[in-house]
Amino acid sequence: MVSMFQALYSLPDQALRKLSSVDEIREVRASGEGMLWVNLYSCQSSEYDIFLRDMFHFHPLAIEDTLSTGYQPPKVDDFGDYLFIIVHALAVGEDVSRLSTDELNCFVGRNFVVTASHVRLAALDSIWERAGRDGRILERGADFLAHAVLDAIVDEFLPYLDRIDEEVDFLEDSIIQDPKPSALRRILELKHSILGLRRVVSPQREVMQRLSRGEFDVISRNCEIYFRDIYDHLVRITDLSEGVRDVVGSTLDTYLSVSSNKMNEIMKALTIVSTIFLPLTLVTSLYGMNFEMMPELHWRYGYLMVWAIMLLIIVGMLWFFRRRRWL
Amino acid sequence: MVSMFQALYSLPDQALRKLSSVDEIREVRASGEGMLWVNLYSCQSSEYDIFLRDMFHFHPLAIEDTLSTGYQPPKVDDFGDYLFIIVHALAVGEDVSRLSTDELNCFVGRNFVVTASHVRLAALDSIWERAGRDGRILERGADFLAHAVLDAIVDEFLPYLDRIDEEVDFLEDSIIQDPKPSALRRILELKHSILGLRRVVSPQREVMQRLSRGEFDVISRNCEIYFRDIYDHLVRITDLSEGVRDVVGSTLDTYLSVSSNKMNEIMKALTIVSTIFLPLTLVTSLYGMNFEMMPELHWRYGYLMVWAIMLLIIVGMLWFFRRRRWL
Amino acid sequence: MVSMFQALYSLPDQALRKLSSVDEIREVRASGEGMLWVNLYSCQSSEYDIFLRDMFHFHPLAIEDTLSTGYQPPKVDDFGDYLFIIVHALAVGEDVSRLSTDELNCFVGRNFVVTASHVRLAALDSIWERAGRDGRILERGADFLAHAVLDAIVDEFLPYLDRIDEEVDFLEDSIIQDPKPSALRRILELKHSILGLRRVVSPQREVMQRLSRGEFDVISRNCEIYFRDIYDHLVRITDLSEGVRDVVGSTLDTYLSVSSNKMNEIMKALTIVSTIFLPLTLVTSLYGMNFEMMPELHWRYGYLMVWAIMLLIIVGMLWFFRRRRWL
Amino acid sequence: MVSMFQALYSLPDQALRKLSSVDEIREVRASGEGMLWVNLYSCQSSEYDIFLRDMFHFHPLAIEDTLSTGYQPPKVDDFGDYLFIIVHALAVGEDVSRLSTDELNCFVGRNFVVTASHVRLAALDSIWERAGRDGRILERGADFLAHAVLDAIVDEFLPYLDRIDEEVDFLEDSIIQDPKPSALRRILELKHSILGLRRVVSPQREVMQRLSRGEFDVISRNCEIYFRDIYDHLVRITDLSEGVRDVVGSTLDTYLSVSSNKMNEIMKALTIVSTIFLPLTLVTSLYGMNFEMMPELHWRYGYLMVWAIMLLIIVGMLWFFRRRRWL
Amino acid sequence: MVSMFQALYSLPDQALRKLSSVDEIREVRASGEGMLWVNLYSCQSSEYDIFLRDMFHFHPLAIEDTLSTGYQPPKVDDFGDYLFIIVHALAVGEDVSRLSTDELNCFVGRNFVVTASHVRLAALDSIWERAGRDGRILERGADFLAHAVLDAIVDEFLPYLDRIDEEVDFLEDSIIQDPKPSALRRILELKHSILGLRRVVSPQREVMQRLSRGEFDVISRNCEIYFRDIYDHLVRITDLSEGVRDVVGSTLDTYLSVSSNKMNEIMKALTIVSTIFLPLTLVTSLYGMNFEMMPELHWRYGYLMVWAIMLLIIVGMLWFFRRRRWL
Ligand SMILES: [Mg+2]
Ligand SMILES: [Mg+2]
Ligand SMILES: [Mg+2]
Ligand SMILES: [Mg+2]
Ligand SMILES: [Mg+2]
Ligand SMILES: [Mg+2]
Ligand SMILES: [Mg+2]
Ligand SMILES: [Mg+2]
Ligand SMILES: [Mg+2]
Ligand SMILES: [Mg+2]
Ligand SMILES: [Mg+2]
Ligand SMILES: [Mg+2]
Ligand SMILES: [Mg+2]
Ligand SMILES: [Mg+2]
Ligand SMILES: [Mg+2]
Ligand SMILES: [Mg+2]
Ligand SMILES: [Mg+2]
Ligand SMILES: [Mg+2]
Ligand SMILES: [Mg+2]
Ligand SMILES: [Mg+2]
Ligand SMILES: [Mg+2]
Ligand SMILES: [Mg+2]
Ligand SMILES: [Mg+2]
Ligand SMILES: [Mg+2]
Ligand SMILES: [Mg+2]
Ligand SMILES: [Mg+2]
Ligand SMILES: [Mg+2]
Ligand SMILES: [Mg+2]
Ligand SMILES: [Mg+2]
Ligand SMILES: [Mg+2]
Ligand SMILES: [Mg+2]
Repeated sequence: MVSMFQALYSLPDQALRKLSSVDEIREVRASGEGMLWVNLYSCQSSEYDIFLRDMFHFHPLAIEDTLSTGYQPPKVDDFGDYLFIIVHALAVGEDVSRLSTDELNCFVGRNFVVTASHVRLAALDSIWERAGRDGRILERGADFLAHAVLDAIVDEFLPYLDRIDEEVDFLEDSIIQDPKPSALRRILELKHSILGLRRVVSPQREVMQRLSRGEFDVISRNCEIYFRDIYDHLVRITDLSEGVRDVVGSTLDTYLSVSSNKMNEIMKALTIVSTIFLPLTLVTSLYGMNFEMMPELHWRYGYLMVWAIMLLIIVGMLWFFRRRRWL
Repeated sequence: MVSMFQALYSLPDQALRKLSSVDEIREVRASGEGMLWVNLYSCQSSEYDIFLRDMFHFHPLAIEDTLSTGYQPPKVDDFGDYLFIIVHALAVGEDVSRLSTDELNCFVGRNFVVTASHVRLAALDSIWERAGRDGRILERGADFLAHAVLDAIVDEFLPYLDRIDEEVDFLEDSIIQDPKPSALRRILELKHSILGLRRVVSPQREVMQRLSRGEFDVISRNCEIYFRDIYDHLVRITDLSEGVRDVVGSTLDTYLSVSSNKMNEIMKALTIVSTIFLPLTLVTSLYGMNFEMMPELHWRYGYLMVWAIMLLIIVGMLWFFRRRRWL
Repeated sequence: MVSMFQALYSLPDQALRKLSSVDEIREVRASGEGMLWVNLYSCQSSEYDIFLRDMFHFHPLAIEDTLSTGYQPPKVDDFGDYLFIIVHALAVGEDVSRLSTDELNCFVGRNFVVTASHVRLAALDSIWERAGRDGRILERGADFLAHAVLDAIVDEFLPYLDRIDEEVDFLEDSIIQDPKPSALRRILELKHSILGLRRVVSPQREVMQRLSRGEFDVISRNCEIYFRDIYDHLVRITDLSEGVRDVVGSTLDTYLSVSSNKMNEIMKALTIVSTIFLPLTLVTSLYGMNFEMMPELHWRYGYLMVWAIMLLIIVGMLWFFRRRRWL
Repeated sequence: MVSMFQALYSLPDQALRKLSSVDEIREVRASGEGMLWVNLYSCQSSEYDIFLRDMFHFHPLAIEDTLSTGYQPPKVDDFGDYLFIIVHALAVGEDVSRLSTDELNCFVGRNFVVTASHVRLAALDSIWERAGRDGRILERGADFLAHAVLDAIVDEFLPYLDRIDEEVDFLEDSIIQDPKPSALRRILELKHSILGLRRVVSPQREVMQRLSRGEFDVISRNCEIYFRDIYDHLVRITDLSEGVRDVVGSTLDTYLSVSSNKMNEIMKALTIVSTIFLPLTLVTSLYGMNFEMMPELHWRYGYLMVWAIMLLIIVGMLWFFRRRRWL
Repeated sequence: MVSMFQALYSLPDQALRKLSSVDEIREVRASGEGMLWVNLYSCQSSEYDIFLRDMFHFHPLAIEDTLSTGYQPPKVDDFGDYLFIIVHALAVGEDVSRLSTDELNCFVGRNFVVTASHVRLAALDSIWERAGRDGRILERGADFLAHAVLDAIVDEFLPYLDRIDEEVDFLEDSIIQDPKPSALRRILELKHSILGLRRVVSPQREVMQRLSRGEFDVISRNCEIYFRDIYDHLVRITDLSEGVRDVVGSTLDTYLSVSSNKMNEIMKALTIVSTIFLPLTLVTSLYGMNFEMMPELHWRYGYLMVWAIMLLIIVGMLWFFRRRRWL
């Protein structure tokens, strides 16, 4: 992956500047004025060090988290004059059951935001592009910029969840008609990815709640309600995922009950057939015996008698099964 | 849907006025006196802007929530001189298992209430109509008006829940008699809609609790107990829905146990029939063989012997099954 | 139901007076002295109004709750100089699985207690009768009188729960011997009524806890420990009901495992019988064929050979089933 | 049961005195000096009154709890100058699944401890015996004496729990080999008694936590850590019991899956046998018919043809089952 | 196990000293200067006494916990000038399902750390070795040394959990193809060890949270964030273990549904075969009877008629099963 860093810098009533060299960024950083957004993705650890360690002097543990590629739950660490936030963005796979997430590390200072991730995030790029065109996005300050990024990332989740919700509803109806294990497997896969999503969304909700409660000086008062809005959004996602989990639960019950019912039907058919034909076959096999002394064999109406017995057995059996409501 | 806005305005010891033009409402709003109730449903976003943005200057995020048609959990946001409340009203479907809800957005100021929803809400219309006839509903102030609206909306839930409770009880008894999958499917559908309802009722309960705890200046002290009453009502709804969920749970257990029992009955019948008739058929088929040298065939009592053997087998088998309590 | 109101009035060092006319009660009420207990059951709403609205001026919402016949969870509302408490008394049905409850509405003032219910409550009558005989019950004050009533109501629950516990234990053992669906249905009914009971007992526990924590001025300090005693009692009821729920849970597991085991036994019998007799019948049916050219038929030991083959098949099969531990 | 009361009394730098008469105890009690431990078990209510009511003037509710024989969850009531504690001791049954508990009522004052139980408690007797030999146990004060008693009682639980844990592990392995319902029933019984134990241990844990948090003046500061130690012990018991519950849970899953698998094996055998022999028997029975005009019967190779057809059927069937991986 | 104690001692700007005799440690301990790390493993209780009781004067209860070999949940006790921490290290077994843990007892003072365990801990040895080479590890103080040890211990967990996660995923896919009970047993074993792990990790998480919240003076302010980092790590472990538990849950559902489906397939085959061949065998057996008067036997096309009837039966049955979608 080609490693990239990009920076946007805005000074009050001056045109927005795109900085592309480390020195430019260092110089602006030193001036301590204006609003600076530095975005790093899939950098070498040396490049991370230039920015995170030497230029911004972030805490070693925060840098360690940023560099680490393993799974890290969303969180917010308060370092006084900057916040270190980890949030998960949706990793868009073609198969909606392959729902996984990529981590965005986000440093929010008083007049800077530094975002870092191992892969390019569509949501982040869309905000970067809008910020490039519309100066106000940076001018409103670091907290509002952070909100714009986090809001774009969280907004991506809902459409996917709606698609899963629809597929689960469709599967539910198809399983009721004809409980095929492949349909059940598919619905369990969807449940599995939904549960994975919930494990990310719930800590992410806590992060937004803390950001909306005025716990951090870096977030201005009238920016808090905006993080509350992302919190609402995440509550919707949790509700929807709980809806899906309930549907999958009852689909499983339906599946087991329908298939145990089909089983009963099959066994009833087998039992009815056997209970009728085995006695009949006994009768016919009885008179297939070669004993010399079998009076009925020489009786004029012997054959008719056998037909009579057989009809009697059939009618008797059918009446029996009707009474036990098997037919 | 024809879009509609309507407004009611009451001044102390003056007749109630129905305002139908935007200017009239703007004029009254500017005067800052009396009690004003503006109700908007299924408006164009431009119409929403005239009222919510230009006339009442509500927060952009609250306006965004009001305009959005997606699912939004009930909540209350405190903007100081007004509250922004989202509650869910029951969407009356003919099939009680198709229980879904419509959202009512409600702005409660010191001397105004603005209600907005995408569809007409029966409960809201009934209060609007009463307020038109009985001036006191507006005169008691914005908080009491808000209570009247929310109480009417919540009151709609219980009758539906009672109908679901009855149908579940009926299904429970029918499944005990004869566990048909269609009955089970119906009860799972009812459970699904009850769970959906619970996901709305529990945040709605929290909203009423906060409104009854004096957390907001806009709600006067002696109006708080009234929101406590709606809270009680929602507790009843939760209890009833938990009752339904328990019944569905044990009905599922009953279903599986009854159908596994029927299965045992069927298999017992098949096994008893086979275990009796297969040996008999072997005996008859044995003496149906065409060996030249088969002494029994020429024996006078050969045929009687076969009948004796067969009776012996039948009696032996029946005794065996009685001992293992299969009969 | 004949509607009835009764009142007991006690003045320090004066005999206890039973008041039966509204005027007497109004007069005593006006004097504001002594301890007054008014008990109303299944009154017309007009009678409720005379007492609750005109005489005691209770809050309209509390009166509305008292009049309403629908299900209302236990709660305590604090109106400053009086408490409004709803508790559930056990509705004694002959079938212990038909466990349901009746509501008692109880207003506790500084020098009065008003109790109201739609049906006569045995527990309440017993305290009324004792209070009539023993003056001290009223003299100790409104809070102690309220405790006596609530304690009598809660004490009724335990004996019933013990009966359910015993029946469940009995059913558990009977299901282990012979898993009949009727036994299982009975145990699920008992579980259903226990769960219903728990939904009432847990809010009732909260009410007693608040009454025992000195949150309300109306309850004197040394009366608090007495409500703590009722709280303990309700904790015992919860534990017992959880015990019952666990037993029902494992009984269900036992039921399913025992019946799936019987199923295996039946199928083994069927399979062993078929696997032995089908091959034998094939052999005998083989030599029942009428081909001219069948050498074995004319062989002296043909018939003996068939018996040898059959014995061989039987022994082989039995050895096979023994090895697979089906026998 | 012979009713017994015993008392130990220690005065600084004086020999330990065993008091056996009520007057001696009353006299010492009146002096208000030294440390007194009175232990009552299975007394008549009159004897309880002499000590609890007349001598120590305990609260009537605490006395009522002590006398009551019904189940009472562990708790601690704070009466200012003394604590009333209920804890459960293990009732040692020979069958470890018959795990039940006996209640110990314990009054802890500044310079006295009164213990009362309906049955003799081994753990209590062991401390009584040690206290009789080692004066320091009483000298360290009422709080440390109470700790010694409660610690001895709680220490009894773990060995039993370990035995249950081992038996459950053993059963788990035996069920995997051969899922017999008797093994499953045994494991459900063990689970039932573990759950019963947990319902006692969790409130008991809360009691120890409150005693270790300095909430009560009667417990001295450096005695608190000792109750913390009993708390740790109870946490171990809870963890172990949760371990057992998980094992039982997965054993049940194993049981159901293994027995449903055996069922499949049996049905496969039956189906393979029937699918092979039924067609063969049809062929032989076909040529057992007595039609005059059956060409094949007079054909030289008719009989061989039947054998060929039969071999063909057998090979075809075996190939079919191999392809569907039933064989 | 050979018992060992080792000690490291560092004085500002003096070389690191390895102390191997009790006197040296006592002397340094008495000087009260520098940073001392004493590590004891599998010592005799006498050796523990020399260090823990006589040299460091730790609380008897903390010493008792250190000596005890039974299971003890992770905890932190605050003794003012030192903390007593119990954490669990991973006991590396070859079979990943045999995941068990060993306890590390850790005393953290202002200028000393004493670690004690019954077995050698790989993680601890690695830190000991690094501390021996890099003086700074001790120089940063007791709190940072404790962090280094605890961090090394917790870091060991994740790789194991990843291996379990992979094996569970593999088993899940194999069970979908072919649900063998051995695969299911293996997955239940993995779940069992994961649940065991969770019971240790959750209290361990609480310990790290308390250490990161500045509750203890012994932990310096800028060391707190480092314990927060271990807390994050434990959150990842919990999430991963919940992921595994969900996968095992749905694998069980898949298993039961697939095996119940195979059961249906087998029964369908049996029923179809029986329902076709039993009637055919009846027809052939009918004309195998030896009645003198059986017209059809002498009819030219009798045999052909039988073939026609049989074909009719076969086609009729196949059409019937196609219509009920059994074929
Ligand atoms: Mg990372
Ligand atoms: Mg947005
Ligand atoms: Mg849906
Ligand atoms: Mg659906
Ligand atoms: Mg649907
Ligand atoms: Mg919003
Ligand atoms: Mg959003
Ligand atoms: Mg909306
Ligand atoms: Mg109402
Ligand atoms: Mg009902
Ligand atoms: Mg019912
Ligand atoms: Mg009410
Ligand atoms: Mg209402
Ligand atoms: Mg009522
Ligand atoms: Mg009582
Ligand atoms: Mg019991
Ligand atoms: Mg029992
Ligand atoms: Mg009591
Ligand atoms: Mg009581
Ligand atoms: Mg007791
Ligand atoms: Mg001990
Ligand atoms: Mg174990
Ligand atoms: Mg094991
Ligand atoms: Mg300990
Ligand atoms: Mg202990
Ligand atoms: Mg230990
Ligand atoms: Mg590390
Ligand atoms: Mg995975
Ligand atoms: Mg997978
Ligand atoms: Mg980290
Ligand atoms: Mg780490």
